[in-house]
Amino acid sequence: MELINALNWRYATKKMSGEKVAEEKVNQIIEAAYLAPTSSGLQPFEIIAISNEDLRKKIQPIAYGQTQIVDGSHLLVFASWNKYTDERIDSMFNHMNTERGLPLNTTDEYKTGLKAQLFALPEQQQAAHTAKQSYIAFGTAIAAAAMVKVDATPMEGFVNEQLDELLGLNEKGLKSQAILALGYRAAEGDWLQGMKKVRHPKEKFLTEIK
Amino acid sequence: MELINALNWRYATKKMSGEKVAEEKVNQIIEAAYLAPTSSGLQPFEIIAISNEDLRKKIQPIAYGQTQIVDGSHLLVFASWNKYTDERIDSMFNHMNTERGLPLNTTDEYKTGLKAQLFALPEQQQAAHTAKQSYIAFGTAIAAAAMVKVDATPMEGFVNEQLDELLGLNEKGLKSQAILALGYRAAEGDWLQGMKKVRHPKEKFLTEIK
Repeated sequence: MELINALNWRYATKKMSGEKVAEEKVNQIIEAAYLAPTSSGLQPFEIIAISNEDLRKKIQPIAYGQTQIVDGSHLLVFASWNKYTDERIDSMFNHMNTERGLPLNTTDEYKTGLKAQLFALPEQQQAAHTAKQSYIAFGTAIAAAAMVKVDATPMEGFVNEQLDELLGLNEKGLKSQAILALGYRAAEGDWLQGMKKVRHPKEKFLTEIK
Repeated sequence: MELINALNWRYATKKMSGEKVAEEKVNQIIEAAYLAPTSSGLQPFEIIAISNEDLRKKIQPIAYGQTQIVDGSHLLVFASWNKYTDERIDSMFNHMNTERGLPLNTTDEYKTGLKAQLFALPEQQQAAHTAKQSYIAFGTAIAAAAMVKVDATPMEGFVNEQLDELLGLNEKGLKSQAILALGYRAAEGDWLQGMKKVRHPKEKFLTEIK
């Protein structure tokens, strides 16, 4: 499968060349993340796509100086809802029903049950749930980048609070979760390039019950 | 991009036909999840692949009776580490260095820093972190299933504690996170089949800073 070849080709690029990724490819990667499924279709996260160089220079120290922030050409910041709210849930269901040409009350019973379940969770657990949904899309974006032969570095190594502040995410009720830096691998100076991809031995990873 | 076509083709199948997915395809989907990246390469989760019919019948009530559990042919249960431990981290780094032909102490400095950072988190946050890693792979598996035209239902709707108990996950220090039911869409009786795929309006989802 082409996806498996792509996943074997990719690696968490440690040094990028400065070459710019074409907007068309960036858009395809974002589109894949946009199409990723989420729990009850709520899609409780947003993407901030940053190519602006000044802003990337400001982000670099927040990400412990990682050079891909500036030597790549785009950053995709995955930022998830800080919590579920009536407004957010209603907005998505109304949009869904409208797009499907259904009466707005079509999903009322399901929605009421869903809200009861989500609002029963402490806010920290609501945030943990939205975060996980954003990671489905994060994984999809990583796969998509590899499919179009764009190098990508998935990053959790940054000070979330500082990035939230810089990007004004608090005001939007969002929390930064992960960054995907997009660019092209440098020919030299990347210690991970060419290293064998290592995963747990398959028998430790997989249990089959037939 | 073929992946975008596949993501547009897929949907959270609500009724499956009973047709069996070939082992070769299931293996490709698992392989994609296996290759998905995780934080520091720790790969802090496992997959339990269940085709056994008796076991799937026992899981169905735990998943609120969802019929795809039995009308699909395979369940992939994504189960993440309940916490990080010295043994788990050492084991992965030793394996990584061995596979790369490097001395075992190559990564000692990095590993010490990583442990300090992870062990500083309360266990609940460690579990939230491993859970997110498993969702990267969950997203990758969903994409892979669509690439090989296998229908899949991503599920969080089950009683985690009961599934953990049934599969003996507690003893392994694992927590079930999500299930991917694999099978083929039924020709009739699936209310979601043919419905428009709806996502937030792109301008609500994406902020570009150029």
